Amino acid sequence: MADLPATPLLDTVKTPDDLRTLAPEQLRQLADELRDETISAVGTTGGHLGSGLGVVELTVAIHYVFNTPHDRLVWDVGHQCYPHKILTGRRERIRTLRQGGGLSGFTKRSESEYDPFGAAHSSTSISAALGFAVANKLAGTPGKGIAVIGDGAMSAGMAYEAMNNAEQAGNRLVVILNDNDMSIAPPVGGLSAYLSRIVSSREFLGVRETLKRFAKKLPRPFQNAARKTDEFARGMTMGGTLFEELGFYYVGPIDGHNLDHLIPVLENVRDAEEGPILVHVVTKKGKGYAPAEAAADKYHGVQKFDVITGAQAKAPPGPPAYQNVFGAALAREAAHDPTICAITAAMPSGTGLDAFATNYPDRFFDVGIAEQHAVTFAAGLAAQGMRPFCAIYSTFLQRAYDQVVHDVAIQNLPVRFAIDRAGLVGADGATHAGSFDVTYLATLPNMVVMAAADEAELVHMVHTCVQHDGGPIAVRYPRGNGTGVALPETPELLEIGKGRMVREGKKVAILSLGTRLGEALKAADQLEAKGLSTSVADLRFAKPLDEALIRRLLTTHEVAVTIEEGAIGGLGAHVLTLASDEGLTDAGLKIRTMRLPDIFQDQDSPQVQYAEAGLDADHIVETVLTALRHNSAGVTAGARA
Amino acid sequence: MADLPATPLLDTVKTPDDLRTLAPEQLRQLADELRDETISAVGTTGGHLGSGLGVVELTVAIHYVFNTPHDRLVWDVGHQCYPHKILTGRRERIRTLRQGGGLSGFTKRSESEYDPFGAAHSSTSISAALGFAVANKLAGTPGKGIAVIGDGAMSAGMAYEAMNNAEQAGNRLVVILNDNDMSIAPPVGGLSAYLSRIVSSREFLGVRETLKRFAKKLPRPFQNAARKTDEFARGMTMGGTLFEELGFYYVGPIDGHNLDHLIPVLENVRDAEEGPILVHVVTKKGKGYAPAEAAADKYHGVQKFDVITGAQAKAPPGPPAYQNVFGAALAREAAHDPTICAITAAMPSGTGLDAFATNYPDRFFDVGIAEQHAVTFAAGLAAQGMRPFCAIYSTFLQRAYDQVVHDVAIQNLPVRFAIDRAGLVGADGATHAGSFDVTYLATLPNMVVMAAADEAELVHMVHTCVQHDGGPIAVRYPRGNGTGVALPETPELLEIGKGRMVREGKKVAILSLGTRLGEALKAADQLEAKGLSTSVADLRFAKPLDEALIRRLLTTHEVAVTIEEGAIGGLGAHVLTLASDEGLTDAGLKIRTMRLPDIFQDQDSPQVQYAEAGLDADHIVETVLTALRHNSAGVTAGARA
Repeated sequence: MADLPATPLLDTVKTPDDLRTLAPEQLRQLADELRDETISAVGTTGGHLGSGLGVVELTVAIHYVFNTPHDRLVWDVGHQCYPHKILTGRRERIRTLRQGGGLSGFTKRSESEYDPFGAAHSSTSISAALGFAVANKLAGTPGKGIAVIGDGAMSAGMAYEAMNNAEQAGNRLVVILNDNDMSIAPPVGGLSAYLSRIVSSREFLGVRETLKRFAKKLPRPFQNAARKTDEFARGMTMGGTLFEELGFYYVGPIDGHNLDHLIPVLENVRDAEEGPILVHVVTKKGKGYAPAEAAADKYHGVQKFDVITGAQAKAPPGPPAYQNVFGAALAREAAHDPTICAITAAMPSGTGLDAFATNYPDRFFDVGIAEQHAVTFAAGLAAQGMRPFCAIYSTFLQRAYDQVVHDVAIQNLPVRFAIDRAGLVGADGATHAGSFDVTYLATLPNMVVMAAADEAELVHMVHTCVQHDGGPIAVRYPRGNGTGVALPETPELLEIGKGRMVREGKKVAILSLGTRLGEALKAADQLEAKGLSTSVADLRFAKPLDEALIRRLLTTHEVAVTIEEGAIGGLGAHVLTLASDEGLTDAGLKIRTMRLPDIFQDQDSPQVQYAEAGLDADHIVETVLTALRHNSAGVTAGARA
Repeated sequence: MADLPATPLLDTVKTPDDLRTLAPEQLRQLADELRDETISAVGTTGGHLGSGLGVVELTVAIHYVFNTPHDRLVWDVGHQCYPHKILTGRRERIRTLRQGGGLSGFTKRSESEYDPFGAAHSSTSISAALGFAVANKLAGTPGKGIAVIGDGAMSAGMAYEAMNNAEQAGNRLVVILNDNDMSIAPPVGGLSAYLSRIVSSREFLGVRETLKRFAKKLPRPFQNAARKTDEFARGMTMGGTLFEELGFYYVGPIDGHNLDHLIPVLENVRDAEEGPILVHVVTKKGKGYAPAEAAADKYHGVQKFDVITGAQAKAPPGPPAYQNVFGAALAREAAHDPTICAITAAMPSGTGLDAFATNYPDRFFDVGIAEQHAVTFAAGLAAQGMRPFCAIYSTFLQRAYDQVVHDVAIQNLPVRFAIDRAGLVGADGATHAGSFDVTYLATLPNMVVMAAADEAELVHMVHTCVQHDGGPIAVRYPRGNGTGVALPETPELLEIGKGRMVREGKKVAILSLGTRLGEALKAADQLEAKGLSTSVADLRFAKPLDEALIRRLLTTHEVAVTIEEGAIGGLGAHVLTLASDEGLTDAGLKIRTMRLPDIFQDQDSPQVQYAEAGLDADHIVETVLTALRHNSAGVTAGARA
């Protein structure tokens, strides 16, 4: 680890109140020290680096100008909030970022009054800030809502929905568009092109000119035809008509690293009587740290790194990541099937689709942060005979749930869902944990829901998805590396709704879905050592269930345990429902369902998280032994029958 | 029923191929006959009237100009599709609209090749049409994607997400913006105001001028600064810059009832080498039928009516509709609690919030069709101390699932969800059936999920929602009228997670959630008549469960049956999970879960639908008797233990 940076001025700033006692000419030094401290901290912990470095000056300027926490500051996504955390009383814990028991890598209400709204998923900030603004307006109390949102996040529908409703907040709403031309991957789409045209078409305005033009816009435009013409003419000059058409006053673009510009413009925005106002700020992701500036995507999220050289700690060598196994498998399928398309919502690398994108650019669609569109677009492709794969993380697919129901499942269209980050995810914490997809998908008629037990299974399942033209099908798999099994030369076509026996026993049956299979097998070893002959099945399908296999296991073993990386309502619930439908519980059935607990778990290593969740080998053994010991005589009704 | 209208020309048109053999000067007569036939049909069946009447000419013009079904025509929402159905081979069945076994009230793939994409929820059409366009482009086959979308639907984020991605389709994508300044309720928001400014600012262009200006726009703008200035200048004249900024060519506004304008403009759009193109057409909802023109909202969805007078068949007098009980209860609460806010997504009347809106306009928010924003906006209000109620139909809440998870449940914010149209809904069919909400909500930590058994219960539950500041809470209730119970003078505060016994018995226990309670009580009567003493509980809460009550019922009765108006993964699954967690099944437990079947049910009367679903008194009795007869000796493993 490098030595801690010297930060004499930052050391005097414990909260924004301290910051606001500084003279404007001290802010440059403060920002420099804040940047050094951010780099040093992330070098220690790993985490999101480039986003925070891009908003160091903006963070200083916002807290300097606005009356936080009474003015409610909402950072969109939240991965740019490390400098904000340092300035808002959390500096002492900043080197615990994303660690178990440490600070969250995102904003979080329970951490600080300066985090009035938590985030991690994109594009929620304008809606939330509008809620704060309107609540204060209704209560007659002071306080604005301030959203800081990146240009990439602007592609999501909910940001637009919020802008479309912003006018009611008047000057209580400020939206700061942080335009770095980069979300995680380079942004796509019409809006992005539009913003680029604004920025590239001319120089940044100086402060005086910005303020003069801004003042000229007030009061409200569009009150008559003459105004309108005038407005469009100004829009032409200022380049902000899209936002103005939605009811905003547009200010910008402004150099987001120039405090001499930021401070007076934000002061003017703060004091304006009219609103809502959108401030278009241009920043550079990774600003001030050469390695991050040079490769913004690679420094979006980093491992621990050497501050001097920028060299990131290498992950220990190991099996390939599931995402890359998926990407390679799909690319291989696409080589001889021209109908296969791949769709990502701004995660070309995270979903492992880079190679697909390179090899089959015509059939690769990065739609931006726009999961709703991604799914219905895929449904349209499927309805016209293509074989589309929507590669979307488990929690982000929640954004498109209605599209899955209404456009895909009801119409029984063969859209393939590749659901990455299923189950617990480690450092990203509760907001990114893929806990609910089995429950919310398996309840839908027509859906097929698979979970891969290892990376070889994933290859088979990708192939099975390709071949399944009868309706929608999903395969879920976790974040992180595979188990190291050999990948198949030729993928198998799995029979829909059929599981596989991994180990045959007599007394205990473990019914596993997904990558807990390894723990199930470890548990089986421990149980055998205790003289309990144990079967282990990899059910493969949460829907349709392998009813024959489940029936056999439940009726020929003394105790059965299901295990899955998901919350209540998923595999275990479906197995229990089958059992009760068929009367298997009537004369006695020892069955337990192991699942995620009914809490949102904070970040930690996945192993710790799964132990906390009670989903490891030890807990399986304990569950089996407890069940075997359980004497329910006299407590169950059926026993009397 | 009025006599059938005389339609000599329409009688010769069985499909769009026939239509395309007509001379342009015959189209006016055809449109008039099509309008008469639409009015006559809806007079017989009830259904959506105003929307269809507004697009009669547009329907004729699109099929006349474009090569349907090879050009893929996608009607957004689909409630305007009756004239389209008449022209596309379904005229003989048009008087079966929305009836059991009849035509769907929306577009539906299984009905016709002219319905390439089904709909019912709003704002999906651009994504789907883009899918068709891109699939054809990839395959090198002819055929455009044509989306017809209302201005109200444009407020939804997914429409924006799709527009943001439209450029890739080139001239294969045509979006026809059907601007009638009315979705179901008058539209709201910045975009709507923007469209109104365009339309009100000047006369419709004549055809020649429209085409001339349109032609001037080609080729592609924005290629250099000079072009850009020119473009903005044209935007000013044409008023279409917002769409142009997103990458569309904008044409309009055009009088959507003037075939002499529509036909040549659409021909020009069809033949353009550049694209995508957005055609802004202005229509009048209810056009050509005086009663509907005069009260567009009242004629959005109608009962059967007298074609001559416009008088709609009165619904038989009966108990109040749940939606109105909800609205009145909330308004009463709001009278003495200034923190209560109500939020609707374009359904002020459907959610029963009209009175609230009138009495508390400052605290009423119609956000337009924007469920994602609605929920996160509510989360922001809640975080600032308000008590927001999101009143959203069960299926539409699917649009905001991620916001429920990420912004509400994870942060444990006390947003109140009033979930109308829970369960089967009758004539609107599968797309509107609220089948999944208990499953997708009860799987979330922190959520409280209630279902009202009758309208008095709903009043108690609204009150309980108001008082529940500890986290999110939802109450679900069905479409249609209550049971006729007396409404409480003073609402009760229900204890969270406590059900109630409605009838005490000894042998059979029926555990009901929601309005199947009436059928459960009927079943209990039938069972008692057979000598089977029957308990009936109204569990009230799907989450948290009343564990003590459930434990008692399961362990003191010979057979237990759960019943709910929802799909697998809901109440029954949670009860079974509790039972297996506690080992209640170990020594034998006769339990059956009655739930919606694993299919999407087509439209019919709710009674028929529930009978099909097996969720009525007769099926409860049959389930109980079958379970009691079931001899499972020898088939279950636990029995051997």
